[in-house]
Amino acid sequence: MRAPAMSADDIALLLHAEFPQAFYPGCGHSIERVDFGKARVRWAFDESSLRPGGTVSGPTMMELADFAMYVAVFSAIGPQPLAVTTNLSINFLRKPARADLIANARLMKVGKRLVVGEVTIYSEGTDEPVAHVTATYSIPQAC
Amino acid sequence: MRAPAMSADDIALLLHAEFPQAFYPGCGHSIERVDFGKARVRWAFDESSLRPGGTVSGPTMMELADFAMYVAVFSAIGPQPLAVTTNLSINFLRKPARADLIANARLMKVGKRLVVGEVTIYSEGTDEPVAHVTATYSIPQAC
Amino acid sequence: MRAPAMSADDIALLLHAEFPQAFYPGCGHSIERVDFGKARVRWAFDESSLRPGGTVSGPTMMELADFAMYVAVFSAIGPQPLAVTTNLSINFLRKPARADLIANARLMKVGKRLVVGEVTIYSEGTDEPVAHVTATYSIPQAC
Amino acid sequence: MRAPAMSADDIALLLHAEFPQAFYPGCGHSIERVDFGKARVRWAFDESSLRPGGTVSGPTMMELADFAMYVAVFSAIGPQPLAVTTNLSINFLRKPARADLIANARLMKVGKRLVVGEVTIYSEGTDEPVAHVTATYSIPQAC
Repeated sequence: MRAPAMSADDIALLLHAEFPQAFYPGCGHSIERVDFGKARVRWAFDESSLRPGGTVSGPTMMELADFAMYVAVFSAIGPQPLAVTTNLSINFLRKPARADLIANARLMKVGKRLVVGEVTIYSEGTDEPVAHVTATYSIPQAC
Repeated sequence: MRAPAMSADDIALLLHAEFPQAFYPGCGHSIERVDFGKARVRWAFDESSLRPGGTVSGPTMMELADFAMYVAVFSAIGPQPLAVTTNLSINFLRKPARADLIANARLMKVGKRLVVGEVTIYSEGTDEPVAHVTATYSIPQAC
Repeated sequence: MRAPAMSADDIALLLHAEFPQAFYPGCGHSIERVDFGKARVRWAFDESSLRPGGTVSGPTMMELADFAMYVAVFSAIGPQPLAVTTNLSINFLRKPARADLIANARLMKVGKRLVVGEVTIYSEGTDEPVAHVTATYSIPQAC
Repeated sequence: MRAPAMSADDIALLLHAEFPQAFYPGCGHSIERVDFGKARVRWAFDESSLRPGGTVSGPTMMELADFAMYVAVFSAIGPQPLAVTTNLSINFLRKPARADLIANARLMKVGKRLVVGEVTIYSEGTDEPVAHVTATYSIPQAC
C-alpha cells in the first residue's frame, strides 16, 4: 500500500499550528489512523452536543466528517491547509448511541484540482453506520 | 400569505426549552424573521470560528443552515422538536466576510412525512451567497 | 441585466453540432429562454418515460436538469462544450403531471474553475416544483 | 449472509412487467447479481450515449445508478414497484471508457419508510470508479 504523504502525528501538529482555536488537546477530535487517502478520526462523546431525544447533533457529525476528509486529503497530497470543501452531502442513517463517534474517510478521486471522498460514521462499538458523507475538496493551484 | 404555525418568539422559547445547552441568549444564533415555510436566522461573527485564510468555518455554516431549516419546519408544521434531518447537502460558493452570517430558509415541499427546503447563506452586507444548502427533514408519525 | 454570452439560438446550434445524436429537432428537449446565468428549457411529454403510477421517470428529470444547467453555463461563459458536471444532487418533490416539464436553471457561482447552479423543475401549468437540483460544472483550464 | 427477498430473475420479471417500455431484452440494462441489500447491474455500451470528448453521458450514469438502487431495494424489501427515489446525489469521478458500465449498489439503511444506499459505477475492466452515487428511496406505507 502506498505510504501516506503525512503521518497522523505530522497532520495533528499541522492542524494544531493552523487551527489552534479548533484543534488542541482536549478539543474532542483526534486522529486515530492515517493511510494513503484514508483516515480514521474520533469525536469524544460530550453531553453538550445532545439534542432532544438524547441523540448526538447533526452538526457534530458534519463537523467530524469534514475533519476526517481534511485529514484524508493531507494523507494523499500533503500539507494543503488552504484546501477548501466545495460540497458536502450527508445522509443521517440511525440515531447515534451516547458514545464516541468514529469516522472513516476514504478518498475516491485525488485529482490535481478536486479531491472527492466518502466518510462513514459509527458510534463506537456498533457495526451499523449512523451517517454517511460524500465531500469534495478544491485544491489551490499555482496557476 | 398564510400565517406561520408558530411565531419567531414562540419558536425561540421552544428551542430554548428543548436545547438549553445549544440555544440561549448569547449562543450566537438568533431568529430574525419567520413566515409560513420561511425563516431568516443570524449567526453572530465570532473569531473562534475562523479557519486558515481567515474565513468562517464550513461546519459553522452547516450548523447555521440546519438551524434555519429547523426553524422553517416549525413555521410550517408547528412544534415538532423530534423532527430530524435525514439529508443535508451544502455547496460552498464564496469565502465569507469577517461578518455575521444571515441564512434564509425556504421550504419547497411540506409533506406528511418529509419536508424539503433550501437555505441560502450570506455574509451580512453582501449580495452574493457564500453557501447554498438543500435539506430534508423527517417528521415523526403517529402510526 | 448583463447580456448572455450566447443566445438561445446560438446555444441550440452549438448543441446540435456537438451532440447531433442527442440534441436535434424532435429530440424532446428545447431551449425556451436564456439570460446571463439563467436558462429555461422544456421537455416534451412522452408516454415512454412513464413509470409505474403513471409518473415521469426520475432519470428524465435528471437529464433535463443537466441539460438546463449546461445551457445556463454557456449563457454565462460562452461555448465550453467540454465543461463537465462534477456533482449533481436532485430532490424529487412531487409526482409530475402527464405534461411537459419546464426547467429553470440559475447559476449561483460562476468561478474560473467551477460553476454552481440550481434548477427547479415544474410540470407545465403547475406552480409547485416537481424536483429541485443543485449541480456543479468544472470548466477546462488553459493551464 | 441473509438471502435476498427476490432473486435477480424475479426482479427482472417484475421490472419487465411493470416497465415494459423501459426494461426489456436489449434495453441495455441487465441485472448481473443480487444479494440481500446489494445489486450489480450492467449498462451495455452504446455509441449514441457518447458526449463531446467521447465519454458516456452523465444522465446514462444517473439512470444506471437509479436502476441499481431500485434493484437493491427489491432485494431487501421485496416487490415494491411504487417505491420512489426522493434524493439522488452523484459525483462524477473520471471519464468513463468506451465500454460497458458496471454499477454496484449497496444499501446502508433499510428503514420502514426510507431506504438509503450508495452505488459505485465502473467502466468494465477498470478498477477506479467513474462515478459514485448516494440515493434515498421512500417506501409506500399502509397507513
